[in-house]
Amino acid sequence: MSAQIRMGIAGYGNLGRGVEAAIAKNADMELVGIYSRRDPSSVVPLGQDTPVYSMDALAAHTNDIDVLILCGGSKSDLPDQGPALAAMFNTVDSFDTHARIPEYFAAVDAPALASGKTALISAGWDPGMFSINRVFGEALLPDGDTYTFWGRGLSQGHSDAIRRVAGVAGGVQYTIPSETAIDEVRSGSRPELTTRQKHIRECFVVLKEGAREDAVRAEIVSMPHYFDQYDTTVVFITAAELARDHSAMPHGGFVIRSGNTTDGHAQVIEYSLALGSNPEFTSSVLVAYARAVHRMNAAGQFGAKTVFDVAPGLLSPKSAAELRAELL
Amino acid sequence: MSAQIRMGIAGYGNLGRGVEAAIAKNADMELVGIYSRRDPSSVVPLGQDTPVYSMDALAAHTNDIDVLILCGGSKSDLPDQGPALAAMFNTVDSFDTHARIPEYFAAVDAPALASGKTALISAGWDPGMFSINRVFGEALLPDGDTYTFWGRGLSQGHSDAIRRVAGVAGGVQYTIPSETAIDEVRSGSRPELTTRQKHIRECFVVLKEGAREDAVRAEIVSMPHYFDQYDTTVVFITAAELARDHSAMPHGGFVIRSGNTTDGHAQVIEYSLALGSNPEFTSSVLVAYARAVHRMNAAGQFGAKTVFDVAPGLLSPKSAAELRAELL
Repeated sequence: MSAQIRMGIAGYGNLGRGVEAAIAKNADMELVGIYSRRDPSSVVPLGQDTPVYSMDALAAHTNDIDVLILCGGSKSDLPDQGPALAAMFNTVDSFDTHARIPEYFAAVDAPALASGKTALISAGWDPGMFSINRVFGEALLPDGDTYTFWGRGLSQGHSDAIRRVAGVAGGVQYTIPSETAIDEVRSGSRPELTTRQKHIRECFVVLKEGAREDAVRAEIVSMPHYFDQYDTTVVFITAAELARDHSAMPHGGFVIRSGNTTDGHAQVIEYSLALGSNPEFTSSVLVAYARAVHRMNAAGQFGAKTVFDVAPGLLSPKSAAELRAELL
Repeated sequence: MSAQIRMGIAGYGNLGRGVEAAIAKNADMELVGIYSRRDPSSVVPLGQDTPVYSMDALAAHTNDIDVLILCGGSKSDLPDQGPALAAMFNTVDSFDTHARIPEYFAAVDAPALASGKTALISAGWDPGMFSINRVFGEALLPDGDTYTFWGRGLSQGHSDAIRRVAGVAGGVQYTIPSETAIDEVRSGSRPELTTRQKHIRECFVVLKEGAREDAVRAEIVSMPHYFDQYDTTVVFITAAELARDHSAMPHGGFVIRSGNTTDGHAQVIEYSLALGSNPEFTSSVLVAYARAVHRMNAAGQFGAKTVFDVAPGLLSPKSAAELRAELL
């Protein structure tokens, strides 16, 4: 019997909790500990027996952890943690600031290479599974167009933007892909679509006392970049309704590649996700990629990696022979 | 400027023609020649300038071809050609007899390893892209169920079965996935579905003179394995209608993984294909994998491989840095 993969979790918010839940679903893994910047005694893990340590304890645990999953945010946590921890551990993270990926990759690559570690960056679903499907789509149908739609899903950034509007006590924003646009893409006609045609934005807003619906709605729908390029609906609700109906974090979307193999033949590839919980699915992806990272490190593949560098079979607990017999 | 990948095509039916068309869509590839068991002068390639050789000429062309795509059938061609040609060339094939894949893998692996060649077997869409999505689905949602639906598409095997019925002059069979079943799977409820619930079979049949509709219909719908476990409709048409309306080869289908990350949260991953031409899409997949095989061979990865062993980035003509910057 082969030993279990020893996992660590660095950072314990929604993503860290999702990773803890995902590790419990994988029999070939065990959770060594959660590492938090908070006082460990204030952290309540899902598993009663899960050890919780201070983030400072990580340096003393390098021999106890096969793969460390970094569950911090892309804005302020990962730019520091990613390079620092890749010097000590094999890591997986969900760095998702698309424009800064090349610079983050380089920052993680150097310490990982120098230490003989493997560091997979930007895993999850977008970046992640959606990215893989964009690559597959281009490669399989070089004469074609790729379309990405997001939603129906809660957008954290847009929800934050709503809550900064004067007169707003609370609120959430859902990004909704246009069914009309998706159907047009699915037809194989390869349409050109504007930003407004692809997605609709739906806001549920709780007003502060004395605030006026008209004024708040007008400020939201005209907000540059966030809402002005979209058709946006604003629905006013009570604080009780917000708490009752809008605390889940669903998300998902579609990557569609439409192309022609010859002039007469259109081909359409579609990948879609309907996620009951965005952070739990992202976590589940990170955990599967941790298995691949463990194997790649054992095979001497050091440095920073992305999902593009990982053969699909490495994600599975099954052997290559089992996969060929059962799933090919 | 790097040299183009020099491609060869062994076998020139629907699949070989599709490969010729696909190579023309990939600027980093050039077609060295088509190799046929027929008299080369009787083969009419799509490209006026495409050289056509006898299959026997292959042994003299080992230095001219980087990757040879085997376009023969799984029943009688590939079991011999696969091992024989993997001793001389890097190869890609679409061996699709699922139950015999382990034995075929072994038969190709030995000569490829001995000759320092890379031989990718069983590429295409099923086996192929559907297989990859079954592996991804299991790995990303270990607590879940996988559903594969095929169609709407022309089934060659079932069409052949119809044409063997007494009184039948011609006919085709379409496999149609049940919309009701797909919607149930998409809901995340993880239903158990019988064979009859998943697919419907639709036959278009031309009768021989004097044959009786009732008798032919009864024989078709009760045919063991092919039709008896399905709800089958039989529509009688004229030979002219068969030629006019049923000569295309559409196909496609769905791989859906429905799983739970926690008891409260269902997640659904769906991959689907809507193919205007089944052989042309399969060919396009083979050609993209030829690029990966070329690179894997250059990296010293010899022997038989499957799509499970190929990192997605290897399929793309773009560099790893370009992929990270543009598609991650």
